[in-house]
Amino acid sequence: MKPFRLASRESESQDTIVEINTPRGAVRIGEGYCTVIAGPCAVEGREEYLQVAQSLQEMGVHILRGGAFKPRTSPYSFAGLGKEGLEILAEAREITGLPVVTEVLDTRDIDLVYRYADILQVGSRNMQNFSLLQEVGRADKPVVLKRGFAATMEEWLLAAEYILASGNRQVILCERGIRTFETYTRHTVDLGAVPLLKELSHLPVIVDPSHATGYWRMVRPVAKAAVAAGADGLMVEVHQRPECALSDGQQSLTPENFAHLWDEVRKIAELEGKRY
Amino acid sequence: MKPFRLASRESESQDTIVEINTPRGAVRIGEGYCTVIAGPCAVEGREEYLQVAQSLQEMGVHILRGGAFKPRTSPYSFAGLGKEGLEILAEAREITGLPVVTEVLDTRDIDLVYRYADILQVGSRNMQNFSLLQEVGRADKPVVLKRGFAATMEEWLLAAEYILASGNRQVILCERGIRTFETYTRHTVDLGAVPLLKELSHLPVIVDPSHATGYWRMVRPVAKAAVAAGADGLMVEVHQRPECALSDGQQSLTPENFAHLWDEVRKIAELEGKRY
Amino acid sequence: MKPFRLASRESESQDTIVEINTPRGAVRIGEGYCTVIAGPCAVEGREEYLQVAQSLQEMGVHILRGGAFKPRTSPYSFAGLGKEGLEILAEAREITGLPVVTEVLDTRDIDLVYRYADILQVGSRNMQNFSLLQEVGRADKPVVLKRGFAATMEEWLLAAEYILASGNRQVILCERGIRTFETYTRHTVDLGAVPLLKELSHLPVIVDPSHATGYWRMVRPVAKAAVAAGADGLMVEVHQRPECALSDGQQSLTPENFAHLWDEVRKIAELEGKRY
Amino acid sequence: MKPFRLASRESESQDTIVEINTPRGAVRIGEGYCTVIAGPCAVEGREEYLQVAQSLQEMGVHILRGGAFKPRTSPYSFAGLGKEGLEILAEAREITGLPVVTEVLDTRDIDLVYRYADILQVGSRNMQNFSLLQEVGRADKPVVLKRGFAATMEEWLLAAEYILASGNRQVILCERGIRTFETYTRHTVDLGAVPLLKELSHLPVIVDPSHATGYWRMVRPVAKAAVAAGADGLMVEVHQRPECALSDGQQSLTPENFAHLWDEVRKIAELEGKRY
Repeated sequence: MKPFRLASRESESQDTIVEINTPRGAVRIGEGYCTVIAGPCAVEGREEYLQVAQSLQEMGVHILRGGAFKPRTSPYSFAGLGKEGLEILAEAREITGLPVVTEVLDTRDIDLVYRYADILQVGSRNMQNFSLLQEVGRADKPVVLKRGFAATMEEWLLAAEYILASGNRQVILCERGIRTFETYTRHTVDLGAVPLLKELSHLPVIVDPSHATGYWRMVRPVAKAAVAAGADGLMVEVHQRPECALSDGQQSLTPENFAHLWDEVRKIAELEGKRY
Repeated sequence: MKPFRLASRESESQDTIVEINTPRGAVRIGEGYCTVIAGPCAVEGREEYLQVAQSLQEMGVHILRGGAFKPRTSPYSFAGLGKEGLEILAEAREITGLPVVTEVLDTRDIDLVYRYADILQVGSRNMQNFSLLQEVGRADKPVVLKRGFAATMEEWLLAAEYILASGNRQVILCERGIRTFETYTRHTVDLGAVPLLKELSHLPVIVDPSHATGYWRMVRPVAKAAVAAGADGLMVEVHQRPECALSDGQQSLTPENFAHLWDEVRKIAELEGKRY
Repeated sequence: MKPFRLASRESESQDTIVEINTPRGAVRIGEGYCTVIAGPCAVEGREEYLQVAQSLQEMGVHILRGGAFKPRTSPYSFAGLGKEGLEILAEAREITGLPVVTEVLDTRDIDLVYRYADILQVGSRNMQNFSLLQEVGRADKPVVLKRGFAATMEEWLLAAEYILASGNRQVILCERGIRTFETYTRHTVDLGAVPLLKELSHLPVIVDPSHATGYWRMVRPVAKAAVAAGADGLMVEVHQRPECALSDGQQSLTPENFAHLWDEVRKIAELEGKRY
Repeated sequence: MKPFRLASRESESQDTIVEINTPRGAVRIGEGYCTVIAGPCAVEGREEYLQVAQSLQEMGVHILRGGAFKPRTSPYSFAGLGKEGLEILAEAREITGLPVVTEVLDTRDIDLVYRYADILQVGSRNMQNFSLLQEVGRADKPVVLKRGFAATMEEWLLAAEYILASGNRQVILCERGIRTFETYTRHTVDLGAVPLLKELSHLPVIVDPSHATGYWRMVRPVAKAAVAAGADGLMVEVHQRPECALSDGQQSLTPENFAHLWDEVRKIAELEGKRY
């Protein structure tokens, strides 16, 4: 028996399909689907966010992303708009009909974030914030659990186990690059994680090629590779003007580049027999 | 200017000396001192804890350690006694006159832990839990900030910066091993970090040879090496019966082995002109 | 100017296409092609090798692989058949009409290996064996240069530069997994390296999903991902009876599994507009 | 039984003491000694080398180092004086009476280097150049085997095993830093390796704090830490004018700084009961 009991294939042979109900029908994440989450790193302002959200909705994106509470390495960096950001996300959902995912950083903020988001995100730096895992495990909304920078498969699945064991079975694993000796790129994307997780676990696996590479030119090829490796979806940073982004501009795609990515990814998804 | 402004040598050329007042006088951590924190990984029971605390006090240990809230990789592992553990720590302080350090895992627990502990510890897994850093930054008690498994010097010092920028200047950096490709040991101790931090920052630097190696036979040589490299102190796991420990038994020293370590470390501290 | 002058895009904007002439026409490796190298880790015996070689030829493999001189971590492991292995490779080439690639470990063996092989391979452990690089740089046959376990992009391209600067412009870069903290898999495949190398250099880039993952179940998805990421080809371990292989059995595919892989890879190659 | 049979403690409980005979008596490396190897990274010229060699001899250094064949990441960097460098080393030995250690890069150079050197060095990049290991294993002179950048303990000891199994029992292990995610320093020194190797093997263990840190200010504290951790000696880069060095200037000590280091190291060696 694997130490991550509830997350393991042994305990549950059937693939978990996470469902989010929307006015236009259910959005699903899991085996057999290729679901795309897109949006800017952070919600930086109302106008800009609504604009990019509508572009993304028109391009067929399934879920919107955007950070209201941003974990920043330096205390002097822009840390998100907080509640105002959540309100903008809610407005974007209203207009586009798309569900939204946003990160929660602190156990004390879960109730607030829960009121606005359709999916809660636990970021890499909090992958072993066990209190936070237990609290989102008590929520009845899906959780995107990003892999820690230096987390092994086992640690990651045990982090998922905290959520599952607290009662929430709707966990989506998101590979976002690990820390290695390489210096040309911000992180090293571990696409071998995709088939490995699919073998070890029944949970959906998506890939964030933006954080995983840290460099926009690499996002499209890595996104395609992720789906070819068996990923159930992608989380991609898209910004109207990446050069003006308050965070992660270097790894953000313009809507035009995202459209190009999505065109090519869909063809691979079709080869793989995945719905999108 | 370094990005970690308040933590940098440039902003403060004088070494920070952290002071904890006790009935028997001040305990100091910083340049010129060799301060030893010791105790079991977790507070597992009243009798055992008071017994080991008294042995350690007799051997000249300066500060007691013991976890009441334990971050565990698996949700199925022993996670500490919580409030009961804090009460045992307080009783040990009463009896021995030694200050105690214990970990805080959740922003919601800070008030509780604050009431019992003399020093708050932020563990490796929470090194980039920025809400937690800000909250301990608002406390008026010293903070031991352990290095994340995969944290660079810069990220670590920026994590310290969160605490400093929130108003708390009493931060102690604790090297506890990093994650590498090596498989013989649980972590790889980075003793080069000691002189590097001493050059980059004015904050006290201690080393935890127990977590850093994960193997009790390596604890004594690594402890000696740490002090020879310039560390201002040590944090060592000591357990009456390591083979029965509920966590970290393999890396814990018996009180006898700890006495041997402390004998040898003191000689190196003397060579270095450090008080203890 | 990049330090790897001759290897850089700046010095040569046109993609290098390596050509190997065979009785049946030229085999090409480089942009626009999807070239597959396959065969067992080591040449273990005449019968077995000829058998697998013929299966592979029938399946449309372009180049045969097989080690005659094997670098083994332990001095007590099977180290290859040496000259006898080279003779078997030559016989396989005769029968199948396919070119062969094999590793050279020692500057003193280059003349011998040169007589039998169509492509010389420099393995990961020798990526910074600069004498060997210079010697294969003086040969007029293509060189597959595998990435070192812990080599950065820059070090790898500088290793290629040694070959290029010695006069040999036919260098093929082969990603084969890097060393990280992960313990579930032998190595971590770095598929982000593919688009990055394509941007930095004009040299062909192939991927070895067998060594990169160390586990046969991961080979197919990673092979597909590699081609989707833009790789110009693959190097795959195939063995008639992986469970009996003298080395690398765990990561070898049966011919049947390889056929399955090749079927799926071809579809992605077609999407990418690559000839095979 | 460990896979590194001859290198293991199990096969040989008695510590190996390597001896080099000189006109002034034997120089020993192994348990109970603190032996210092010093000199510039590369032999750059006759005058300079003889000058620094004499300074080092006067300071009590036991063995001289200096590269004649230099492994360089770039083919465009200074690669050593070759045979001329070896002749300068021989002259320095003549004058100072000290034995010399120098690196051998290529199996074809072993005879040449053997004629001049008292100790052969196999560098990090060649730690798994198995032909080279076997050839130095056939020589009757001691070998310093540096740890590969990303070599595990087991791989390192198996590399030593190649030498031992070829007949040469005089192997000295030299820790020189490993590759990690840290970017402030060139490498991360692994001093935990010292007690671990002492437990696993009977071979002498020395530390090269110059390469391990890449930064001269860290050399002294790390050298002291190495000896406190139980190392049997040090290999230190010393250059008359580090700012003019053709390689590794940033990590080289001036003779004055080296004298300071040696003063402090000796005190720790005395505490440890080591002769020097």
